Amino acid sequence: MAALLRGLKSFSLSGRSLSITSGVAPHRRYGLPSVLSGQRNSSSSSKMTVDLDSSTGIAMMRFQSPPVNSLTLDFLTEFATNLEKLEMDKGCRGVVLTSALPKIFSAGLDIREMYGKSPEHCREFWKAVQEMWLKLYGSSMVTVAAINGSSPAGGCLMALACDYRIMADNPRYSIGLNETQLGIVAPFWFKENMVNTVGHRMAEISLQLGLLYSAPDALKMGLVDQLVAEEAVVTTATETMAKWFAVPGHARQITKSVMRKPTIDKLLSNREDDINNFVTFITKDSIQKSLKMYMESLRKKKA
Amino acid sequence: MAALLRGLKSFSLSGRSLSITSGVAPHRRYGLPSVLSGQRNSSSSSKMTVDLDSSTGIAMMRFQSPPVNSLTLDFLTEFATNLEKLEMDKGCRGVVLTSALPKIFSAGLDIREMYGKSPEHCREFWKAVQEMWLKLYGSSMVTVAAINGSSPAGGCLMALACDYRIMADNPRYSIGLNETQLGIVAPFWFKENMVNTVGHRMAEISLQLGLLYSAPDALKMGLVDQLVAEEAVVTTATETMAKWFAVPGHARQITKSVMRKPTIDKLLSNREDDINNFVTFITKDSIQKSLKMYMESLRKKKA
Amino acid sequence: MAALLRGLKSFSLSGRSLSITSGVAPHRRYGLPSVLSGQRNSSSSSKMTVDLDSSTGIAMMRFQSPPVNSLTLDFLTEFATNLEKLEMDKGCRGVVLTSALPKIFSAGLDIREMYGKSPEHCREFWKAVQEMWLKLYGSSMVTVAAINGSSPAGGCLMALACDYRIMADNPRYSIGLNETQLGIVAPFWFKENMVNTVGHRMAEISLQLGLLYSAPDALKMGLVDQLVAEEAVVTTATETMAKWFAVPGHARQITKSVMRKPTIDKLLSNREDDINNFVTFITKDSIQKSLKMYMESLRKKKA
Repeated sequence: MAALLRGLKSFSLSGRSLSITSGVAPHRRYGLPSVLSGQRNSSSSSKMTVDLDSSTGIAMMRFQSPPVNSLTLDFLTEFATNLEKLEMDKGCRGVVLTSALPKIFSAGLDIREMYGKSPEHCREFWKAVQEMWLKLYGSSMVTVAAINGSSPAGGCLMALACDYRIMADNPRYSIGLNETQLGIVAPFWFKENMVNTVGHRMAEISLQLGLLYSAPDALKMGLVDQLVAEEAVVTTATETMAKWFAVPGHARQITKSVMRKPTIDKLLSNREDDINNFVTFITKDSIQKSLKMYMESLRKKKA
Repeated sequence: MAALLRGLKSFSLSGRSLSITSGVAPHRRYGLPSVLSGQRNSSSSSKMTVDLDSSTGIAMMRFQSPPVNSLTLDFLTEFATNLEKLEMDKGCRGVVLTSALPKIFSAGLDIREMYGKSPEHCREFWKAVQEMWLKLYGSSMVTVAAINGSSPAGGCLMALACDYRIMADNPRYSIGLNETQLGIVAPFWFKENMVNTVGHRMAEISLQLGLLYSAPDALKMGLVDQLVAEEAVVTTATETMAKWFAVPGHARQITKSVMRKPTIDKLLSNREDDINNFVTFITKDSIQKSLKMYMESLRKKKA
Repeated sequence: MAALLRGLKSFSLSGRSLSITSGVAPHRRYGLPSVLSGQRNSSSSSKMTVDLDSSTGIAMMRFQSPPVNSLTLDFLTEFATNLEKLEMDKGCRGVVLTSALPKIFSAGLDIREMYGKSPEHCREFWKAVQEMWLKLYGSSMVTVAAINGSSPAGGCLMALACDYRIMADNPRYSIGLNETQLGIVAPFWFKENMVNTVGHRMAEISLQLGLLYSAPDALKMGLVDQLVAEEAVVTTATETMAKWFAVPGHARQITKSVMRKPTIDKLLSNREDDINNFVTFITKDSIQKSLKMYMESLRKKKA
């Protein structure tokens, strides 16, 4: 608990050191030093590659964690570290999030991080989920989600936290906050991000029923901003950046903060409670049973 | 005042005893014991019937208070008691609200409860209106409004407090919060429920002008979710329940609370002020005069 | 500072004396005495004319400050004084805001009031901007914007603060909060008014990118309520008033307050901070440089 409080105290949206990285086993690859120094063209780590084009100021972050880019603790920690570094890099003005895997953007939070794990692990995991969202929703960079595959639950949250969402025009790809279908609950800040995007009524019915929407339906309801042919998703994302970069950066960043700070502050001032709520909920026998059943149903689907 | 404070203290969304029922004259029928015990198939009272189908878990609540299902103190008290009992009944998972009368869902608050009445009566009445809404908007059950007729003012509020609204596809039926047209004011929690449903701008123009919308217009603006042929309203409501019941109940209930608790809490923490505001406003000479004129205009319409 | 605090203390949405008028040089024409006494037909001052038709209760306020109805300190002060007087006048029930100049409703805040000026001047100016909005958004009268020309930035804010917006159906006229394009930032209460009108998502993308919308696009997104032929804008505005006047006035006014008071209160309780933020921001060297560049680009356009 003391460590956690220390962590909270040292937390800062723009701080150079992240509490979540302290005490991490040395074999984990958090850093992409080549992004910040040297030739700065391309680099990769286990879960994603990051390419910063210094001529455009656009960083391309490609998720490559097979089979479905699940948000594990490792993935989330690496993501936050990469984003933090790009945030600090004056040569980087925008980030495109996309997937290097076919048919999937991200399948969302990895259930294996919540099933059969200690409360301490669940606590660490949830803090990393919060960290990912706080960094992404509060980023001063322009953030564009190039959604080239399905994007349920936590995958949808990542997209929602960006400034703009471009999705592949493929009705077989779906997106949404479908947590209730798994027997779990999207916390209040998932909800707030969803309400800010599609309005209260659409958010309520989507979240209560855990609805996934096809790409065309997602466009109609405003869950994504634009559909383009699958092969054009990433190029459209970089073209979109040009439009955003044309706006004076300082004014745009403050304006983004005016829009998003109230929502971010709600989590920042309830972060500890939110972790406790999650850990209490997820470690319940009934919920663990639900997760087990869900994982078994996934296994059967594959077989 | 002491009694009221006692009432507030003992109030609980899920408590077994309701303060509003204490001290009520014995001749009022609050209870529908047959719903909770015995054969539990069908029961009726003066203002509505309640049928719980134990095979589906769906309770059908049919309003039958001629001529227009006005929300009198008796109606509201009976409604809250019924809802409370269903909430406690583990065999009940959802409630359909509908009307047993032709052409009208509910005409809203009964003006006779506010005209020429003592401040004490107005106070008791308003507390019952709050109670109805708190119980319905905060219900952990799935609630579907089967709107088979017009539904102005308080009738609209009842529909708005449900999870889903199905209306008869009849352009002669209208729905809306038309309080200003009567010279009275929808309180802040009517407004919040409306904003949560149709957004701030639509709510503002609707409430300022006291607009009633035809069924097709209500669908377009999101005031109702679905239109079906009049004879299919109730069957569609029960079919809709099946979709909602397919979602893990515990997760759905917590999610509903995540969505609605902030709005409910605003009323709970301002309940006494809201009652005082209502009583001060409604007992004004000018407002009493408006109500009298409105009732006379209704009488002339009939004649 | 003492003067400012005194000003804040005496501020009142409905008070007869406005702090912003104290200490003003005597040659400024704030008052339109003929509006409130005598024949009350027509009057004019340097920045706008006000005509109150006592037979209809509609005041027509026509902006006539060439070349583009910029919101200077003088304009804002005169506007607030006129609105205050109309508010006090029992014969006035509604105000139409429109422009007497071709092609422009209002070009928004006058940059010359923010460029190369002392912090004290910037402070006084910003207080007048707040005052304009507080009086207009909180007016108990019916307020209709007859937008017969382009309406960027502060011009858009004036329109947003009205109850209803009718725009000339001319695709060459544009409207929007384009502050970021100028390198400046719409403060939180501009944002709140925008969110209340077009929803959070549309507001976020509009404000971040500083987007201006053509009249047809503004209608689609709900930024304006109605498009009519240019020559019919003002007559449609007065016809619209009739619909609003048909609603019992007392109930409509309280309802408007129920809708808008939470937003107004946010500014009232942060007014001093908001002024300080503005002055600190606008007097920065980098921002002054941006303003200079923007003014030069405007000059080049003209030439």
